[in-house]
Amino acid sequence: MADLRQATGLLRVRTPGRALVEITRDVAAWVAQQRMDDGLLTLFCRHTSASLAIQENAAPAVQRDLIDWLDRVAPEGPHYAHDDEGPDDMPAHIKAMLTGVSLTVPLIGGRLALGTWQGIYLIEHRRAGHDRQVALHLLGA
Amino acid sequence: MADLRQATGLLRVRTPGRALVEITRDVAAWVAQQRMDDGLLTLFCRHTSASLAIQENAAPAVQRDLIDWLDRVAPEGPHYAHDDEGPDDMPAHIKAMLTGVSLTVPLIGGRLALGTWQGIYLIEHRRAGHDRQVALHLLGA
Amino acid sequence: MADLRQATGLLRVRTPGRALVEITRDVAAWVAQQRMDDGLLTLFCRHTSASLAIQENAAPAVQRDLIDWLDRVAPEGPHYAHDDEGPDDMPAHIKAMLTGVSLTVPLIGGRLALGTWQGIYLIEHRRAGHDRQVALHLLGA
Repeated sequence: MADLRQATGLLRVRTPGRALVEITRDVAAWVAQQRMDDGLLTLFCRHTSASLAIQENAAPAVQRDLIDWLDRVAPEGPHYAHDDEGPDDMPAHIKAMLTGVSLTVPLIGGRLALGTWQGIYLIEHRRAGHDRQVALHLLGA
Repeated sequence: MADLRQATGLLRVRTPGRALVEITRDVAAWVAQQRMDDGLLTLFCRHTSASLAIQENAAPAVQRDLIDWLDRVAPEGPHYAHDDEGPDDMPAHIKAMLTGVSLTVPLIGGRLALGTWQGIYLIEHRRAGHDRQVALHLLGA
Repeated sequence: MADLRQATGLLRVRTPGRALVEITRDVAAWVAQQRMDDGLLTLFCRHTSASLAIQENAAPAVQRDLIDWLDRVAPEGPHYAHDDEGPDDMPAHIKAMLTGVSLTVPLIGGRLALGTWQGIYLIEHRRAGHDRQVALHLLGA
């Protein structure tokens, strides 16, 4: 049994404003460079108005529906105490809380244990595009 | 101090359609087989219309209320762009995004660090029963 | 490369009732005591009516807005089957499901990989103050 080791990295993602941005390929490429067979991958989004989710990667309509639903459940409006950074800021914090900023995915037999239809997404919750950072950590052998 | 090592596994869960299905016992049995004292357990649901949650394990009414609430916040209806797989498909994706597909639980002193009233649940969000897979990963000693 | 090792701990948090309670400083102090440079920190809330979130740490209004929003989306009322422990109990379970009880944060170069504006919070969802426990696990070197 090979000794366990770890690797860390940073993924930079440019977003176009409110959208799900798929990062599966970039993440898988980084994992492949670490040359491990089994382990645990952690992704951590370093922001409070963007987040991470694993979602259906086949139908683009799913992503539109998710964004629309988040807008309905946490709409912009005058009812927030915090609006220093514009009307889309507080809804963005709510959406980031709902969907979460950390994800863990096992690596088994040299492949991330994602299901057939699962993709890894960074979700941008602000109207404007941003440069986002996702910290990566892999423990394994 | 014993050397760290890791183990991976796959739990198969047959669901009855929309419900919380408790998997605590199956997960704990798998963990016990790995004979570690301390470590980190990760569970990963390999689907986009089922998810994982840790919830109250004492009162069955809690589980009914959780399912009802999810139905209210993400109802079926004609307002989704994606409906290729039926009216319960897009609400299922939303619910999976809200509740999440990965969970991490420390193992301390030979026991999962669950609180007294905490159980581990797979949540089926589709109307029909499905065969679901939960990837398991344990790192520890 | 130093050998990987692990540490476990328990953080006790007294809450004042419904609120976000910042625990970043306590968590970072515990991590610093373990004297690791790189690794993976896991926090696990051992309750079903309190949870964990990473959120904006600058503006207190954000925390009020988050609590208000959770109250709106999961209000108290007569429509729950489970009400053995009072009207705020079932909403608390729903909010804990939404926001989650486990968090993982990479440790990179001796520091948690939190972004500039990110703080770690325990969210109390019950009206009354409680003594809460957060299990801590750190793997690294």
